Amino acid sequence: MKKNVLIIGAGGVAQVVAHKCAQHNDTLGNIAIASRTLSKCEDIVSSVLEKGSMKVEGSIKAYALNALDVAATVELIQQTESQIVINVGTAFLNMSVMSACIEAKVAYLDTAIHEEPNKICETPPWYANYEWKRRDECKENGVTAILGVGFDPGVVNAYAKLGCELLDSVDSIDIVDVNAGDHGRYFATNFDPEINFREFTGTVYSWQNSEWQSNKMFEVSRTDDLPVVGERTTYLSGHDEVHSLSQNLGVANIRFWMGFGEHYINVFTVLKSLGLLSEQPVTTAEGQEVVPLKVVKAVLPDPSSLAPNYTGKTCIGDFVKGKKDGKDKEVFIYNVADHKEAYNEVGSQGISYTAGVPPVAAAILVATGEWDAKTMVNVEELDPRPFINLLNTMGLPTRIKDEEGDRPVSF
Amino acid sequence: MKKNVLIIGAGGVAQVVAHKCAQHNDTLGNIAIASRTLSKCEDIVSSVLEKGSMKVEGSIKAYALNALDVAATVELIQQTESQIVINVGTAFLNMSVMSACIEAKVAYLDTAIHEEPNKICETPPWYANYEWKRRDECKENGVTAILGVGFDPGVVNAYAKLGCELLDSVDSIDIVDVNAGDHGRYFATNFDPEINFREFTGTVYSWQNSEWQSNKMFEVSRTDDLPVVGERTTYLSGHDEVHSLSQNLGVANIRFWMGFGEHYINVFTVLKSLGLLSEQPVTTAEGQEVVPLKVVKAVLPDPSSLAPNYTGKTCIGDFVKGKKDGKDKEVFIYNVADHKEAYNEVGSQGISYTAGVPPVAAAILVATGEWDAKTMVNVEELDPRPFINLLNTMGLPTRIKDEEGDRPVSF
Repeated sequence: MKKNVLIIGAGGVAQVVAHKCAQHNDTLGNIAIASRTLSKCEDIVSSVLEKGSMKVEGSIKAYALNALDVAATVELIQQTESQIVINVGTAFLNMSVMSACIEAKVAYLDTAIHEEPNKICETPPWYANYEWKRRDECKENGVTAILGVGFDPGVVNAYAKLGCELLDSVDSIDIVDVNAGDHGRYFATNFDPEINFREFTGTVYSWQNSEWQSNKMFEVSRTDDLPVVGERTTYLSGHDEVHSLSQNLGVANIRFWMGFGEHYINVFTVLKSLGLLSEQPVTTAEGQEVVPLKVVKAVLPDPSSLAPNYTGKTCIGDFVKGKKDGKDKEVFIYNVADHKEAYNEVGSQGISYTAGVPPVAAAILVATGEWDAKTMVNVEELDPRPFINLLNTMGLPTRIKDEEGDRPVSF
Repeated sequence: MKKNVLIIGAGGVAQVVAHKCAQHNDTLGNIAIASRTLSKCEDIVSSVLEKGSMKVEGSIKAYALNALDVAATVELIQQTESQIVINVGTAFLNMSVMSACIEAKVAYLDTAIHEEPNKICETPPWYANYEWKRRDECKENGVTAILGVGFDPGVVNAYAKLGCELLDSVDSIDIVDVNAGDHGRYFATNFDPEINFREFTGTVYSWQNSEWQSNKMFEVSRTDDLPVVGERTTYLSGHDEVHSLSQNLGVANIRFWMGFGEHYINVFTVLKSLGLLSEQPVTTAEGQEVVPLKVVKAVLPDPSSLAPNYTGKTCIGDFVKGKKDGKDKEVFIYNVADHKEAYNEVGSQGISYTAGVPPVAAAILVATGEWDAKTMVNVEELDPRPFINLLNTMGLPTRIKDEEGDRPVSF
């Protein structure tokens, strides 16, 4: 049964989601795109029509919406007869959009954990602070809510679940995210610098020996020889998926590692040490009040401007370590994506592509009923097989590497 | 004959000048300190009185003055019966203060070349753009104007002149300025960050083979094993003294080299590359207009706050290379100063100390008549001997190093 989709947000990820929904509008039906700035939604609609992304004849329309306004969001869901909402707006909107979905009794998907503007890095597990408080409400209303179904979190949660099924017992899951792409600029962030830097200024929580451990950013590193992108150093980082996998899989060690080049770390360290990443205003000699982080954002390139010249690959995957048939075993389940191919297909760079394709795959699985859970779930609570199979056909193929070699995965 | 002094400016260098004038008020008479902010002048007066710096009973008074107002400056010179003006205010004031001195027929001393706020790094030789245009006027009025009589420019000009007298012919003069001090902060500039960074964002002019040569900052370096501070790398930099020595000494190669640690260069490079040292305003996502350099200034430590914890030494001197008795000869004429000793004596760090002591020595030589030129001169046009002798007794002893060893210099 076809299900209409409402996309909330109009950034680089929303652009990918729109193109991918259009490519599958035989399953997903009508597409609505809503954000505060109507013109950004209209630009995405134009891009989809220009690229000829619509698989079958259908409707794709732009709407202006303040998604913090629950009543307005409910009204738009009803007006557009949407049955699935894909929320890829800013992380500050999640709770409002979820409220609207519960009220309208439609499916809710997002790709990042809820954040409150003035709070950085709250108590772990993060999902328990906002999302999970509404699990019962979803269940009572028969509402499917799939949390964090981008790439990481999202696909890597499915990889973690798959790893647990492939092995007899699992001791550790190490998720590694490397962007080996080159945008040709002196320095740029791949998404909003303000949100990007917020990720790295707080405590790094990891799950080790079945307990929360606290570290600082860039304090702990590992180096792996990864498929395609080669030897890369990654750093223990705080990330959403650690906060659900630790609670759902019964695995003692769950860690997230983000790759950074020396140049990125150097620029970050200089800016942070000088106080230029601060959200607290300073006063200039002339008496002007300024938030330094907002000035840094103003001088950095607009992330969407990077896409046309972005080259190189990303490699994101899970090292799953444990026992199989009484012997030690490690598998690496991963995807490699290409910035240029992403741009050619949907006009976005690879980071937006890997984040934007998975929620559309999830929406298709909700539409077909395979993932229509009728309650709130994180991705590792669902069967990873149909998701991985579908992503194989949608531009994000999964591979596995172990002592038997490196090969594609499908079921 | 005692000569009263008017000090213009109330920063770290003015503080040193005031203390040193007080220590020699048997020659220099009454002391007046004037700047836009009266309270800063009053703080300096208090510091002088608290330290008991006055050698003999005398007057030291604070005044509010906008030194861009020539008539007001003339009036203050007359009211205070000052015969020597030591201008250590911002470099934007020079021409106004000089006008007042010519009108009042009193001596004028400064320590840095005139700058216009909106122009960075004008055509060489810089002195010809402003100061030297008024040389005839000084001569006609019998006014002594000694330009750039801090340490560099200033003492290093006297060293250059002395080097030319010690050798039969000189081929090159390389002035090396190393601050091997440690203020214990992640990053700080030794004087106003805005003025400091202005020095390094323009073209680097040097005098080579009797012609102006243009380079970029950090493009050319040299490494020397220097007395006390050891092996240090310095970078070809633009600096005032090159613009007078090149015109006055008939030497084919005159270069200025500033020492920077790798850490300083790294921070500078990151900030400059990101556009954070720009004087041009940017607009934040919220629509606020901000000059990035002013925000950088706001987050950096106030340079005067560094003094109490500053340790280590400075080494500034001239490598003079040429012929003596038909043989190749090189001498290094230099001074080593100590940050902590400077702070203990006058409450300022070493950079302010080396800049502030020489103009007081020059004022004393004007008062005694030895340097009372009755026209406009740069320091290399005066006899270096009495200046070096006097500085030996005032906290800035000169030493010489050549093939015969390393020894103090006096005449």
